[in-house]
Amino acid sequence: MGPQQPPGAWVDEELGGVRYGLAATVVEEHISPFQRITIIDSQTYGKGLLLDGCWMTAERQERHYHEPLVHPALCAAASIERVLVIGGGDGGTARECLRHPGVAHLDMVEIDGLVVELSRKHLPSLGGDAWSDPRFHLTVGDGIAWAASAPDASYDVVLVDGSDPAGPAEGLFNRSFFQHCRRLLRPGGVFATQSESPEAFRQVHIDTVQLLREVFGHADPLYGWVPMYPSGWWSWTFACPDGPRYREPLAERAAAVAPGCRIWSPRWQRGAFEAVPAFVERQLADAAAQP
Amino acid sequence: MGPQQPPGAWVDEELGGVRYGLAATVVEEHISPFQRITIIDSQTYGKGLLLDGCWMTAERQERHYHEPLVHPALCAAASIERVLVIGGGDGGTARECLRHPGVAHLDMVEIDGLVVELSRKHLPSLGGDAWSDPRFHLTVGDGIAWAASAPDASYDVVLVDGSDPAGPAEGLFNRSFFQHCRRLLRPGGVFATQSESPEAFRQVHIDTVQLLREVFGHADPLYGWVPMYPSGWWSWTFACPDGPRYREPLAERAAAVAPGCRIWSPRWQRGAFEAVPAFVERQLADAAAQP
Repeated sequence: MGPQQPPGAWVDEELGGVRYGLAATVVEEHISPFQRITIIDSQTYGKGLLLDGCWMTAERQERHYHEPLVHPALCAAASIERVLVIGGGDGGTARECLRHPGVAHLDMVEIDGLVVELSRKHLPSLGGDAWSDPRFHLTVGDGIAWAASAPDASYDVVLVDGSDPAGPAEGLFNRSFFQHCRRLLRPGGVFATQSESPEAFRQVHIDTVQLLREVFGHADPLYGWVPMYPSGWWSWTFACPDGPRYREPLAERAAAVAPGCRIWSPRWQRGAFEAVPAFVERQLADAAAQP
Repeated sequence: MGPQQPPGAWVDEELGGVRYGLAATVVEEHISPFQRITIIDSQTYGKGLLLDGCWMTAERQERHYHEPLVHPALCAAASIERVLVIGGGDGGTARECLRHPGVAHLDMVEIDGLVVELSRKHLPSLGGDAWSDPRFHLTVGDGIAWAASAPDASYDVVLVDGSDPAGPAEGLFNRSFFQHCRRLLRPGGVFATQSESPEAFRQVHIDTVQLLREVFGHADPLYGWVPMYPSGWWSWTFACPDGPRYREPLAERAAAVAPGCRIWSPRWQRGAFEAVPAFVERQLADAAAQP
């Protein structure tokens, strides 16, 4: 059990002289082999999860993150029969994927089994019915090793739902990992990853987009909001070898999931891909112009 | 002078069980006839301003707010000869307006002269050259009364740069005020106001957009990010009597200001108008359908 706090205390993530806090009590805190895992109960956003003191998700703030990661990819790939999720231990990404009836098999590879266990116990709405869906296959293990050893062209969609590039997620932001993700894609497949904040992690964001463009040929960031993440301004980047097919959702798939979405819609997505701030557009152009 | 704090202390705005804080020291704090005014010096975003404990602006986070308020309006109105700014005491809105060479006369009506005085002293980069620009005319007074008494068709652009609808800014969010703002516009004129957060002030945001649609005939929200404002997710709403001319910037005016912008570009603006979250789109449709 973690530290006991008085009611009305604050749980904050601090980063570089800025903090975001929720009035909350700590429910459970554990040190796993990979990280410190904290479950909190907040006044405003329900139960929530922190890893190593960084906000990951909360019951009433999770759709801001999961819908933008999942639906642009799942509404665009030529087929969505086989999906790989790397990370995503809270279950929210799997849940959104499995709302698409075209998904026949979803592998989720999460490195920390205790994140899954505590999320199922305290944040059951995150995974929803995914945990018992016969299409859902959980492996507790290293997603980087999984990507390196899975056969060529074995997935239609690969989604990376990891934390910041430090600790266990560090290897999810490099060329070798992205090259394997590309190798895993079937023709017409789509890759997506959270790609940090253009405000709070500007250089990591730019470097990630640029590297994905180099590895896949086509990659574009999409901008949205996750209030609990540093600066609140967040991005996800989508990549395809055969053209930017992620930019326009297939109408039939979009119509099947849009009514159940809180943030995402085809219109929102079009805007979110266009809303590249001027300083990012200039930095990406500079990066592309370098030899 | 305000309270002395140790170096590395936090200055936070708290709202509904959520807080956003900067590591900062308080430089000056005063109670004006209208509000408590606090000037801080932060590690990360430079000097900053709070009114009644709410974050208003900071030297290195102000363009996130001022560019989206100003350029969609100034790049769209048929003429931009005469501009009215209500509020805006820190000077940032006037500075962005005056970057447009077509502006011949700008009236700024700020209710609290002490906000102007402290901003000029501590945040000189906010107003920049605006304070000494011969086109700039400051009146310390009530912007609501100004709007009620100014002649019909006396401005090309009316911008409202006020704080949340409580205290001195309360009257900036109602039908009578908006009707006067419409009355002030010349043909082809554009009105714009900050319109709160769809996350942290959801109902105020929806009501403001809906009311502007009723009063002007055409109004649309644009979504961006101001990390220090509640939730980080912010909106500005643009309105015109003669059609949604604010949606597409005039190329020549845009080209004159875009190179000096950090966030805004014609592309960013197109995206920011499209990125209406699904729950807002549904609520606006419901509001419009009511008798």
